[in-house]
Amino acid sequence: MRTTVGIIGAGPAGLLLARLLHRAGIESVVLEGRDRAYVEQRQRAGILEQGTVDVLRAAGAGERMDREGLRHDGIELRFDRRRHRVDFPALTGGRSVTVYAQTEVCKDLIALQLKEGGPLLFEAEALAVEGAESDRPRVAFRHQGREDVLECDYVVGCDGFWGVARQAFPAGVCRVFERSYPYAWLGILADVAPSHDELVYARHERGFALLSMRSPAVSRLYLQVPAGTDAEAWSDGAVWDELERRFETDDGWRLERGPITQKSVTPMRSFVHEPMRHGRLFLAGDAAHIVPPTGAKGLNLAVGDVVTLARALAHERETGSPDLLDAYSATCLRRIWQAERFSYDMTTLLHRAPDATAFDARLQLARLERIASSRAAETDLAEAYTGFPLG
Amino acid sequence: MRTTVGIIGAGPAGLLLARLLHRAGIESVVLEGRDRAYVEQRQRAGILEQGTVDVLRAAGAGERMDREGLRHDGIELRFDRRRHRVDFPALTGGRSVTVYAQTEVCKDLIALQLKEGGPLLFEAEALAVEGAESDRPRVAFRHQGREDVLECDYVVGCDGFWGVARQAFPAGVCRVFERSYPYAWLGILADVAPSHDELVYARHERGFALLSMRSPAVSRLYLQVPAGTDAEAWSDGAVWDELERRFETDDGWRLERGPITQKSVTPMRSFVHEPMRHGRLFLAGDAAHIVPPTGAKGLNLAVGDVVTLARALAHERETGSPDLLDAYSATCLRRIWQAERFSYDMTTLLHRAPDATAFDARLQLARLERIASSRAAETDLAEAYTGFPLG
Repeated sequence: MRTTVGIIGAGPAGLLLARLLHRAGIESVVLEGRDRAYVEQRQRAGILEQGTVDVLRAAGAGERMDREGLRHDGIELRFDRRRHRVDFPALTGGRSVTVYAQTEVCKDLIALQLKEGGPLLFEAEALAVEGAESDRPRVAFRHQGREDVLECDYVVGCDGFWGVARQAFPAGVCRVFERSYPYAWLGILADVAPSHDELVYARHERGFALLSMRSPAVSRLYLQVPAGTDAEAWSDGAVWDELERRFETDDGWRLERGPITQKSVTPMRSFVHEPMRHGRLFLAGDAAHIVPPTGAKGLNLAVGDVVTLARALAHERETGSPDLLDAYSATCLRRIWQAERFSYDMTTLLHRAPDATAFDARLQLARLERIASSRAAETDLAEAYTGFPLG
Repeated sequence: MRTTVGIIGAGPAGLLLARLLHRAGIESVVLEGRDRAYVEQRQRAGILEQGTVDVLRAAGAGERMDREGLRHDGIELRFDRRRHRVDFPALTGGRSVTVYAQTEVCKDLIALQLKEGGPLLFEAEALAVEGAESDRPRVAFRHQGREDVLECDYVVGCDGFWGVARQAFPAGVCRVFERSYPYAWLGILADVAPSHDELVYARHERGFALLSMRSPAVSRLYLQVPAGTDAEAWSDGAVWDELERRFETDDGWRLERGPITQKSVTPMRSFVHEPMRHGRLFLAGDAAHIVPPTGAKGLNLAVGDVVTLARALAHERETGSPDLLDAYSATCLRRIWQAERFSYDMTTLLHRAPDATAFDARLQLARLERIASSRAAETDLAEAYTGFPLG
């Protein structure tokens, strides 16, 4: 098999890249190790930055998002039994975010790709990237029980944190930056209308809690739990009781309960791999960087990467100049490190560390007070939340 | 001996409080354990917030400050061999800071107090505060070899972190919040014109450095060193070499050297004692709270405390209402926790922790990039640096 751009992974990064390349007249093949049903069902992020919405729309993948996505003009910070709303458009000159689940983005992109894009092979497991430094990099993969090779001009690893693409970088050329956190998120999906119409980020002495939603009828809620927690150790009643405690306010706000349809634990990690390019192999999305979910940045970073890469590949095709490809890693990393910083700050602002001192707890409250009382500090948060400039 | 307000300590907090009370027609006596020469020579802070300048001027203690103080409209952040200036007036609607050493503030206040204020006893060592919960609190002290008692309506402990006033709070009523840092500042005074006309805060992989000044002819410079460092272990040449390394830029900026006239090591600590009042005993300044010096907040917090207290005492005298005295602790603590937060943030933004990972280092750089590229983030810093509202 032969193509121009071999893409490993049919998550949002790989699918959107294939879409953008298709519209630029550049051939690609997408290899995905899982089957279609799995990809369309794995629960991930749900907050799209303004820039991500714009990109999906421009790529012709915005129709259902525009119909079903929920525009959010703010979030609520909850601390000390008080509520503070951050008004995004007022602070950022009109920017907002859209609640539309990553699974839905993937469904839309898969449907488009199968209808009018290049090959998208499910259950095609990438085994290794070879010849990244040569003119003809290759992806060895296994599909329908048989091993095959995809020959490419370029290979892009969109295969997530556990993927094989990153392993093709020789140890000597890369640096890894990472941090793990001693807590995780216990997430639930529940068939009940969200108790608040915007996301609620709660800092509580018992730990962080987040109220989010998938649709007007489905709530998505999270509880900070110790790293390594087994989701099944929490009964449904215990989850609701704990959520209620952490969201409690002085003004009588009420959390509505409903049947829990899914329960899972998400670990928290910060990770950056530098550089994001080696020869003709590029990394995009989670293959190159992970953020803890508190800042809602993971999906949006992946979109930023592939927009930058598609533009660079088109530029090289049109002008023969490799300038943008050469700048790919540095261009993406500027944005990535801002998102890493913001995600770290949002995480440590709101979570209770097991070794937190009384001083640390007061610092968190002072930070929240600062955001609630200084337009500058609040704007800093709103700008970061609604998204750093692409590219 | 008998007075209305007994003040322990003739640092800036105690001296300014005596001055403010004098102008409000309230009697006070100041007890200071050291002699006058010592008080007038101990090197401390040197950055006065706009609000502090206004208070000193209104208290009639601004004449020499207005003549000799240096108005600063910004600071420079130095990182990655680059320079970024933070323009205070442009970001804060006209606010600035003034470089005028704490020793000079003390000299001015001592001269005024001896000329027209109440008693100021040097070498009068406070031994204990008694009867804080009664109507007649007392300070036991030793003066000229003989023990005596100062009977008061109110006692104010302005006697610093190591003072006796705080010890009169029963353990059950107070909470202490603290954090120590594994590094310290090696500070020098040098007879050489400052190499830059504003303060330079340098983040370097070898550690933090700060360029400051006492006058147009005297430089004040600091180097981050490990906690517990002996100042004498550093030769003058080694200090200059290390400063040069940490301040180095790509644009050829030069550090001028000169004779070092003083060398000392300052430990770094965050500390807050809550509440700041027990019965008729009040704490102000370092007796109640310590910040690491990076945010230049220590002296300014002390000024905020005594302004709030003088106002509350005058209010009680004029109206008979204890409302402001009752609110003293909470009023001060709001501002103090913002200063604690800012001082912690400036410290951890710029210092190298001995256990810092590569991820931590990148986070620092991303934070500095953010300040240099977002007006909101830069304004947040400029507002905090030039001062939180008094009272």
